[in-house]
Amino acid sequence: MTPCALTVDSLNPKVLALADHLGDNAIARRAQCIQNEIEAEPESHPFREVLALCDYPHLLEQSGTNSLFSSGAIARAREILDLFPGRATGGYSHSQGTEGLRDIIAAGIAARDNFPCNADDIFLTDGAAPPVHMMMHLLIRDKKDGILCPVPSHSLYTSAMLLQGATLVPYFLDESRGWGVSMSDLKKQLDSARSMGVFVRGLVVINPGNPTGHVLVEENQREIVDFCRNEDLVLLADEVYQENIYADEKGFHSFKKIARSMGYGEGDISLVSFHSVSNGYYGECGRRGGYMEVTGFNSDVKKQVYKVVSLSSCSNISGQILMSLVMNPPQVGDESYASYQAERDGVLSSFARCAEAMVRSFNGLEGVTCSEAEGAVFVFPSVRLPKKAVAAAEASNTQPDAFYALRLLETTGIVVVPGSVFGQMHGTWHFRCTVLPHEEKKTMTVIISSFVAFHRAFMEEFRD
Amino acid sequence: MTPCALTVDSLNPKVLALADHLGDNAIARRAQCIQNEIEAEPESHPFREVLALCDYPHLLEQSGTNSLFSSGAIARAREILDLFPGRATGGYSHSQGTEGLRDIIAAGIAARDNFPCNADDIFLTDGAAPPVHMMMHLLIRDKKDGILCPVPSHSLYTSAMLLQGATLVPYFLDESRGWGVSMSDLKKQLDSARSMGVFVRGLVVINPGNPTGHVLVEENQREIVDFCRNEDLVLLADEVYQENIYADEKGFHSFKKIARSMGYGEGDISLVSFHSVSNGYYGECGRRGGYMEVTGFNSDVKKQVYKVVSLSSCSNISGQILMSLVMNPPQVGDESYASYQAERDGVLSSFARCAEAMVRSFNGLEGVTCSEAEGAVFVFPSVRLPKKAVAAAEASNTQPDAFYALRLLETTGIVVVPGSVFGQMHGTWHFRCTVLPHEEKKTMTVIISSFVAFHRAFMEEFRD
Repeated sequence: MTPCALTVDSLNPKVLALADHLGDNAIARRAQCIQNEIEAEPESHPFREVLALCDYPHLLEQSGTNSLFSSGAIARAREILDLFPGRATGGYSHSQGTEGLRDIIAAGIAARDNFPCNADDIFLTDGAAPPVHMMMHLLIRDKKDGILCPVPSHSLYTSAMLLQGATLVPYFLDESRGWGVSMSDLKKQLDSARSMGVFVRGLVVINPGNPTGHVLVEENQREIVDFCRNEDLVLLADEVYQENIYADEKGFHSFKKIARSMGYGEGDISLVSFHSVSNGYYGECGRRGGYMEVTGFNSDVKKQVYKVVSLSSCSNISGQILMSLVMNPPQVGDESYASYQAERDGVLSSFARCAEAMVRSFNGLEGVTCSEAEGAVFVFPSVRLPKKAVAAAEASNTQPDAFYALRLLETTGIVVVPGSVFGQMHGTWHFRCTVLPHEEKKTMTVIISSFVAFHRAFMEEFRD
Repeated sequence: MTPCALTVDSLNPKVLALADHLGDNAIARRAQCIQNEIEAEPESHPFREVLALCDYPHLLEQSGTNSLFSSGAIARAREILDLFPGRATGGYSHSQGTEGLRDIIAAGIAARDNFPCNADDIFLTDGAAPPVHMMMHLLIRDKKDGILCPVPSHSLYTSAMLLQGATLVPYFLDESRGWGVSMSDLKKQLDSARSMGVFVRGLVVINPGNPTGHVLVEENQREIVDFCRNEDLVLLADEVYQENIYADEKGFHSFKKIARSMGYGEGDISLVSFHSVSNGYYGECGRRGGYMEVTGFNSDVKKQVYKVVSLSSCSNISGQILMSLVMNPPQVGDESYASYQAERDGVLSSFARCAEAMVRSFNGLEGVTCSEAEGAVFVFPSVRLPKKAVAAAEASNTQPDAFYALRLLETTGIVVVPGSVFGQMHGTWHFRCTVLPHEEKKTMTVIISSFVAFHRAFMEEFRD
């Protein structure tokens, strides 16, 4: 029963290197699943109607369709289908994505930023993970190449770097300043990596933040743009939570918009923006739609981007269509605008209320401090664990924050992801908690009470 | 206008190495697009109905739905939606794919092979390209690792190997024996690679063949299984055209079925079977659904497979659903069985008639010989080009077969892919021609006449 050809020690060590990391991530994935089970309400929005019509265009010729689908969805489906020769959405598209859909997305980006966007810069992808892997594949030759990556950060970036054998050059987000980027730390880490012979190729920024739920202030974004420009770094901007901002005083500003508003054009900075349909208020993670917008790459380099993208023929057409709908939602005057607007605002303001309740409750707990929730769907409180708890974790060969998270899961059924999965300052412990926009169902209140009770009992048990 | 951070010579040389290859492939991709534009008839089959209902489950609660959708599609959609908690198809699934859908696929494989199939061995993917890249990522450490790959072969395999920096160990399909695998050549190539210090990890077999359109005889499959078993090679079986077999005396036999029927179990051979929704009679390339069935891997190795797969969260749910429909089509007794059966048989017999007409016409042309078309959607004739044509090609810095293909395209609008894209015996020239199952529209007759006229004129122009 032991096949001869393959043993673990004969596999690619870069894959093996991912081990612990993705092991820990089981909790993260479970949390994501629960979040999505709760979030997903496919019947509730017009995007799904359009997708169904595009899947089965025959419906558009049936008289009964008018009673089952909104006229807005029907009109939109017709527009989209007209972009496909013979209305056939079943074939491969251009490897970069269907041309007409890229036009729609480029127009959406231009409207969002108030700066032009070229459809040739858009590469439609199966969610945000593949293009991140593609860019790492392109940029990383061997372990002498490095990428600046925030700590804490979503595991996608560290995984993609490990898989390419890159040197991860960490920089620490400043918890004391709402998880902003400390430019002095950034410079220190870059210089230190360079002094060790690492060729630093790019800088990853996640805004709004995952796992931190912060939104960068514009001044900080300008500093980051100047830093990348001065230091010859490709700015890799994860902007997948751009529609999830609920702090009143904050808004979304793409790094491209920031760079252009500083007067920097194509030739001044190399910039990649990642987006996907997995987030926003609709959260269609399972559709695997996404794009990267690639600017400031010369044409020879862009050809190489295209080559890597074309290796998987094209991204799935349904995800491409959904991405175009997300970037071109119902407009004022459209039949479905009112319901779309109401749904979006409802979800976002519910997010805001829940996040606020969570932050308030966490800050009331012994040893816990939590930055304000501004965007994405997360809060990332720090927890000062008693020495006894740390010792108990060590005794069971577990990270202290994972020990806490596991206890929480076992006691209450609540899933949080330990900060050690994302990276954190040495000696600090955190957990990422997903904001669930369902306070009307009392779910949130119940969860928070249960959490509070658990934490009190935990501290009682382990108090020094 | 020249951003500073990135120049081509600072990119990953493994990406740069893909250059010429994917350059040549432009014709291939165009041909694929045309093929799909012609093939795609989304209104014509019940799969699309089910997908639309799963996209927008709200329809199932509307009375008007019964008049727009078949009762079979409605029942199937209900079954599938019940596999998703809350009928929510919008969330991530398990990284390996939705459990219930994998059960359906495993049952389909078991019914196809008459041997058991375990749903835990199924990894649902965005088409067949990602899992091929994943397996290469897993198996290849550096250029000392090699994979046996057929010549000619579909570019996916050579691209995936180049991207991982593997050594490609070619073996030549035997055109004189209907593109079968010559075991003596296979052994010779393996020994030669080993003598040069290459650690050969696996063997790629494409059956039915792409670009060759051949179907292996069972005896040849058994020889290949024994070879992999004796030589400790992972058998990587591309079986994506398993539903496209139209030679009367041939049928599809998966390599797993062949291995099991030889008495070999899990412990005897490591085997990966790739399949996708892009082919078959339905040809839904744009949906990006696929799977790999991984057997004979020990549990430690399988954990590493899972890790690589989980890097992109999960494959798109719509593609997952379609893959399950493909592996569990309407059965005898189902309402839609008759129409499904009629459509499938109609497409396949049309393929057979067209392929036969193409082969007959090609074999009637000066200097052209074409093996019988047995499966997939291709024929791959060889053409003996006159010396003058070879010289003219060289003068324009083009491969002679690409020169021929380009001339054909310019003169007639017909797209064929030059054999040099797939690899071929030195001094021979081929082109891959896609079989279009549309003889009822006279398309095929017109294309063939046009091709014949072109070839005659070409030979007149360049005859030695």
